[in-house]
Amino acid sequence: MTQTTEPAGRPYGGQSATERRLSRRNRLTEAVLDLVYESGIESLSVGAICERASVSKRHLYLSFSNLDDLTEETLTDVLAHVADRIAAASAELDSDAPRARLIEGAVEEILTAFDDPRVARLYLEAPGNRGLRAARDHAVAHFVTQLLTLLAGDRADDPRAQLIARVLVGGTTEGVALWLRGDVTLERTELVATLTALGVDAVNHILRLKPPH
Amino acid sequence: MTQTTEPAGRPYGGQSATERRLSRRNRLTEAVLDLVYESGIESLSVGAICERASVSKRHLYLSFSNLDDLTEETLTDVLAHVADRIAAASAELDSDAPRARLIEGAVEEILTAFDDPRVARLYLEAPGNRGLRAARDHAVAHFVTQLLTLLAGDRADDPRAQLIARVLVGGTTEGVALWLRGDVTLERTELVATLTALGVDAVNHILRLKPPH
Repeated sequence: MTQTTEPAGRPYGGQSATERRLSRRNRLTEAVLDLVYESGIESLSVGAICERASVSKRHLYLSFSNLDDLTEETLTDVLAHVADRIAAASAELDSDAPRARLIEGAVEEILTAFDDPRVARLYLEAPGNRGLRAARDHAVAHFVTQLLTLLAGDRADDPRAQLIARVLVGGTTEGVALWLRGDVTLERTELVATLTALGVDAVNHILRLKPPH
Repeated sequence: MTQTTEPAGRPYGGQSATERRLSRRNRLTEAVLDLVYESGIESLSVGAICERASVSKRHLYLSFSNLDDLTEETLTDVLAHVADRIAAASAELDSDAPRARLIEGAVEEILTAFDDPRVARLYLEAPGNRGLRAARDHAVAHFVTQLLTLLAGDRADDPRAQLIARVLVGGTTEGVALWLRGDVTLERTELVATLTALGVDAVNHILRLKPPH
């Protein structure tokens, strides 16, 4: 495509430079979601992404250092959106709302993200791709911190609490992947109920921890 | 190295063909453990493995279809040994032994395997390697079946029980990796106690499941 020179801040086509950058970024991550859904991550290429997104390679490399970086950011954007929605939902709950409601809400937010089949596919491709693994690992670490901050009270810094939260969140990512692949034949409501019950068990376990000796 | 012609079953150097094959296989997997420990999986090559193991490439390719297959079998051998030891230990326990003892024994067997720092390193390399991921995924599925068979009674076939066991076992593999990397600062006894308690919680949860409607 035609390259245009764009001094920072110069309006062009009615959009500021920042708006155009955000629009390009959005088109690039949408193109990654589309192409991985259509053909899998193995056949993903910078050329195909740029063509689908109508973005030049030069602009892609202005925002992302390489293909792994772009795929990582694509999954990170999706998972950060989930984390934001969990935070917003928990802020709306009374401080004395049952823990189960908060955990159930978090599980629902995660599953809602996967209602977009492109997101589900990208997530299932994560184990085999360096960038996607990094995004998934960062999200797990973030969800662990979020869970402990919201629910673990003064136990949040106990390494045993961190281990328990990590086992729960890490294991849940595997359980959800299994379910998305159809390897666990549960109705969605049963999936939510089972994962919520496990989360409540884990949080109760953390809250019962005696201070370290 | 010098190639020798070996008709099946012909004794050579005091060993049968089967003994020589097993010895070569053992030298090859030991070489993988040594080399990954020394230099990481990225720099692993068939040439380096054959040199370290004193095994010809021809013999390597008689037993393994490629490098991924060999690294997968190396980790599979280690994890199958752990599963065998868990099975043997559980067979020795009275049928009315506390569940916690069986689960604690299983956790100890897993950690004992990682006392070999080469095994710990290979395990930590698993996410980034196709063969190692396959070995790890098969082992998780096997441990899930083992856990449900030993402890879940008539709930073993309930998909909710399978989900719970998968969350627990999958999450535990992450927790152990975190601990091996030093990212969770727990004494080994605390690690075992925490993982055992989580396992007991999960099994109790499974045993309380009401039959599906």
